[in-house]
Amino acid sequence: MDSMRESTKQAIQKINTRFYNAFESLSLERMEEVWKHSDDIICVHPGWDLFAGWMAVRESWMTIFQNTERIQFLITNTKIRAFENTIAVVVCLENIQSNVSQNKMKTGVVATNIFERQTIAKNNEKYEEKWLMIHHHGSPVSNYIPPNVSI
Amino acid sequence: MDSMRESTKQAIQKINTRFYNAFESLSLERMEEVWKHSDDIICVHPGWDLFAGWMAVRESWMTIFQNTERIQFLITNTKIRAFENTIAVVVCLENIQSNVSQNKMKTGVVATNIFERQTIAKNNEKYEEKWLMIHHHGSPVSNYIPPNVSI
Repeated sequence: MDSMRESTKQAIQKINTRFYNAFESLSLERMEEVWKHSDDIICVHPGWDLFAGWMAVRESWMTIFQNTERIQFLITNTKIRAFENTIAVVVCLENIQSNVSQNKMKTGVVATNIFERQTIAKNNEKYEEKWLMIHHHGSPVSNYIPPNVSI
Repeated sequence: MDSMRESTKQAIQKINTRFYNAFESLSLERMEEVWKHSDDIICVHPGWDLFAGWMAVRESWMTIFQNTERIQFLITNTKIRAFENTIAVVVCLENIQSNVSQNKMKTGVVATNIFERQTIAKNNEKYEEKWLMIHHHGSPVSNYIPPNVSI
């Protein structure tokens, strides 16, 4: 692992937060902005088999958003690792409060989120740097104890 | 993602297989050889919260091995991605047949395994290259259908 610059760490933290904000908003458009639209991205939702490739991953989010009335996240225990300033692995605990099919639930999910740094050419030979999600793996925590705060 | 050399792909496939062979052997010594012994490795076993750092991860394997009589894996759907020839992300389906506390079970687990390439100095200014596990995240598949083959 590289020793990480503060600016890199902040950029990774920011894209991870954007992912959960997109999830909370239940907006496919905002979720689309977070992900790399590529054939080799992978997404594993808690309890599900994997979805591979942007088309399948996009579809899975559409299904989740259509079946979710309301979802709120409190993200804790965030651990960030970056490699070659290109790949970032974020592990965190999703403390979730959700309304699915009229049931109110508090659940805990451990997530592995992987982001890849993109260099995008802009006008006047300028380049823009941007992190995009290429992997999300969430798994349910069996003996989950919600934190003693409201989300 | 880099386009991957065949030798790189084989090396990654090999360490991933070594991980499952170590798991099947229930040998802590063999599991120790697969992992990087570092403070920033992370391991999430199905249904559990995460373990961070080699000491905690080692302890978790010890507990699993002590409570497992027999476990066998058939690994399918393996997807390998490599970045900068330094980080490899392997996703696969673990088709598991196990005896835990005298119960025979068939379960499916989706795993995200991350390996980091190490360059180790040897005698005579030679260097050895070696992949080590830095992340394992397994999550249960709820509606798992075992493959129609014996493991």
